[in-house]
Amino acid sequence: MKWLSGAVLALLMLGPVQAQNQTQNQARTVVATGDLGLVVERATGSLLLVDQSDRAALARITGLGDLSHASLVYSPDERFAYVFGRDGGLTKVDLVEGNIAKRVVQAGNAIGGAISDDGKLVAVSNYEPGGVRIFDADTLEPVADIPTGSKTIGLVDAPGRRFVFTLWDDGETWIADLSGAEPEITRITDMGRNPYDALITGDGRLYITGLFGEDGLTALDLWDPEPKPIRVLPEYGRGEKEMPVYKMPHLEGWAKAGREFVLPAVGHHEVLWIDGETLAETGRTKTYGQPVFAMSRPDGRQIWVNFAHPLNDTIQVIDTLTKEVVHEFKPGPAVLHMEFTPRGNEIWVSVRDAGKVLIYDTRTFEKRGEIDAESPSGIFFTARAHRTGL
Amino acid sequence: MKWLSGAVLALLMLGPVQAQNQTQNQARTVVATGDLGLVVERATGSLLLVDQSDRAALARITGLGDLSHASLVYSPDERFAYVFGRDGGLTKVDLVEGNIAKRVVQAGNAIGGAISDDGKLVAVSNYEPGGVRIFDADTLEPVADIPTGSKTIGLVDAPGRRFVFTLWDDGETWIADLSGAEPEITRITDMGRNPYDALITGDGRLYITGLFGEDGLTALDLWDPEPKPIRVLPEYGRGEKEMPVYKMPHLEGWAKAGREFVLPAVGHHEVLWIDGETLAETGRTKTYGQPVFAMSRPDGRQIWVNFAHPLNDTIQVIDTLTKEVVHEFKPGPAVLHMEFTPRGNEIWVSVRDAGKVLIYDTRTFEKRGEIDAESPSGIFFTARAHRTGL
Repeated sequence: MKWLSGAVLALLMLGPVQAQNQTQNQARTVVATGDLGLVVERATGSLLLVDQSDRAALARITGLGDLSHASLVYSPDERFAYVFGRDGGLTKVDLVEGNIAKRVVQAGNAIGGAISDDGKLVAVSNYEPGGVRIFDADTLEPVADIPTGSKTIGLVDAPGRRFVFTLWDDGETWIADLSGAEPEITRITDMGRNPYDALITGDGRLYITGLFGEDGLTALDLWDPEPKPIRVLPEYGRGEKEMPVYKMPHLEGWAKAGREFVLPAVGHHEVLWIDGETLAETGRTKTYGQPVFAMSRPDGRQIWVNFAHPLNDTIQVIDTLTKEVVHEFKPGPAVLHMEFTPRGNEIWVSVRDAGKVLIYDTRTFEKRGEIDAESPSGIFFTARAHRTGL
Repeated sequence: MKWLSGAVLALLMLGPVQAQNQTQNQARTVVATGDLGLVVERATGSLLLVDQSDRAALARITGLGDLSHASLVYSPDERFAYVFGRDGGLTKVDLVEGNIAKRVVQAGNAIGGAISDDGKLVAVSNYEPGGVRIFDADTLEPVADIPTGSKTIGLVDAPGRRFVFTLWDDGETWIADLSGAEPEITRITDMGRNPYDALITGDGRLYITGLFGEDGLTALDLWDPEPKPIRVLPEYGRGEKEMPVYKMPHLEGWAKAGREFVLPAVGHHEVLWIDGETLAETGRTKTYGQPVFAMSRPDGRQIWVNFAHPLNDTIQVIDTLTKEVVHEFKPGPAVLHMEFTPRGNEIWVSVRDAGKVLIYDTRTFEKRGEIDAESPSGIFFTARAHRTGL
C-alpha cells in the first residue's frame, strides 16, 4: 500500500480517453483499481490498460518482450500485474502509474505463472531450462529454484502458500509447499503420458491435467493427504485421427457451471459435460467448430465458446440448464479470448484481426462498446486478484 | 474512474500507521483499493479504513449516524462504499480520500441494502415506512420507490440488474427487475409466516428466507421462469420453546462448502448441513453455543462459527470433510463478526469489548496481527465488490 500526499494535489476529473491519445501521455496516476484490466497486445509486446466501468482504454504499456501465449496475475491490492512472457521475461507492471515497475529475464522459454494466496510469492513455469522459479513479489529477487529435469506446465497456485505444476516429460505432478522455511515437495507419479496443460478448480481442491500422449485426463484431489491420480474420460481423446487438431484447447478455460464442468473437446466439434464430483461424463453439446475456450459466466448459467482456426470468427453461447446453444454470432476475424466482468453482466471479447476488443451485454447480447487494440489476445481483469487458480 | 494529475505530485511512501494517529490527519489519498476494508464502529458512528496486506488501520471516517446493525456494499472500482445505517441514512464513503462523499437520510428506519450487478443502482430496504428505495450510485438521487405496505427484509442483488426482497408482514418475496425503463415487479406469495432475513447464493440462483413465525425456511429457484416457494427443513425451528433464542442468526453468514450449505440453527447449540441441490438435511454438528455466523473459508474446507451472548467469547472451526470441530479458542469478549481475506489465508475477527480486530492465519491458527478499533462489529473487505449477494 502506498500513499499519495493528498494535501498538495488537485483532483483532475477527466473523461475516458482512447488508447491512441494515451500512448504519448502516461504521466498520470489512476486511483481505485477494482475495475481495471490489461489486454495483451501480442504483436507489439505491449499491454493496454482498460477500465471496465468506462468501457475505455486508459494507457498503453510497452516493452514487455515476446508476449505470445502470455498470461498474467495480479497483486492482492490490484495495483501490480506480473506478466509471464514466452521469452522467459517476468515483468511487474504498475497499473497506478501505467508503467513497468521491474523486469527480469528469468529463463530462456517460459509458460505461465501464478501468485501465492498471500500475494508474497510469484512462481514461473519454464520450458527451458525447465522447472519452476519462485520470486519475491515485491522485489522480483529469486526466492527458490525447483529444477525438475523436464519442461514444466500447468503451474497454478493452491491455498496454503502452495504451487502445483506438472512435468511434460515425466508425467508427474509436483506440489510445492512454500509455507515453511524451505520448499517442501510432494511428487505424484503416473499422471499419464505428456500432460500438456492443467487447471485447478476455484476452491483449490481439484487439479486436472490434459494429456497429449494418450486419451483422457488425470485429476488429483488436493484435499486428500496423499493425492492419487484419478483417470477421467479414459476413452475420450483425439479419436482415430479422424480430425486434425488445429489448436489444443486451453484448460484454464474450463468452466464450472453449477455441479458440472464444461470442457472443450480435443479435435471434435463439441463440448463435454462432466459431473463435478464423480468426474463421469454427463453430456455433450455439438458446436460450430473445435472449441478453444469454454468459459462460464460467473453465475454459471451460460457457457461462451470460441473456436479454432479457420472457424475462429464465431462465438456460441450455451445454456447450462438445457445444454443447448441459445445464441450464435460473428464478432469478427480471429476471436482469441473472452473475459467476463466479475459479476457477469458484460463480456469483453478480443477480435485480433479486427484490432478491436468488443464488449457485449450477456443477457441481451447487444454490443455495449468497443476499444481499439493492437492484435489483442488475452484479457485479464483485476478481480482475478481475489480468486484461486487464475 | 477518476484521475489524479500525476505530473505534479510526489509519491510519499509511508508505512502503516495506527488509526489513532490517522484520525487527525485525513488529507491523504490512497491508491490501489483491492486489499482495503471497512470496520463498523457502532458506538461512535464511525468506520475504520483498514489495509489487509499491511494488517493496519489507515484512517477513521466519522459522522455516519446510527450504525447499529449497519452493513455496506462497494462500487465495482472498489473506491466507494455505500453504508446502510439503522437510522435510514445512506452514506457514500470515499476510500481513496478517506471521507464521506455524500449522505442522504432516505427513510426513518432501514435494514440493509444492495448494489446492482452493473454498479449503477443502490437499493435500500426499509422498516419505516417500509418498501425499497433505489438510488443512483453516482449521485444518490432517487431513481425508483417501491412501496410494499410492509416492513421489508432480506434485500439482495441478483444478476440482470435485479433486486430481490421479502415482506415481513405479508410473507411475500418480490423480484424487482430494473433492466428496463420502469421497474418490473414479480410477486411470489406464500413464502411463510414472518420471514425475518434472507440470503442469495453466490451464483445468484437460490434465494432462501428464514421464518420467525413458523418452523423451517423457504427457498426460491430464481432460474425458474416462475419461481415457486420450496419448503426447507419444515420440522426444524426453535423447538418446543425449550431454549430461549438470544440472537437470531444472520442468514448472510450462511456458508456454501462444496455441495453443502451450513446454517446456524435457531436456538440450538448446533449447525445444520443441507445438500445444495435437494435442500435435504445431510448432518448436524454440535457447537459450543447458539451460532450467530457460520462462515465458509473461501475454499470451502473450514467453517468458522461464533456464538450468541453469553457464550460470545469463543470461535469454533469445523472441518467440512469430517463435519467435526477441529479448533476452538477464545479471542476475547463479544466476538461479533468475522471476514476472510479473499483467498482465505487469513481471517479478521471483531472483538467488540476488547476494542480490537484480531487477525489469524487460517491454517496454523496463529495470531498474525491486531488493530485497535472502537467497539468493532461488521468487517467488510473491498473484494465483496466482485461478488453477488454480499
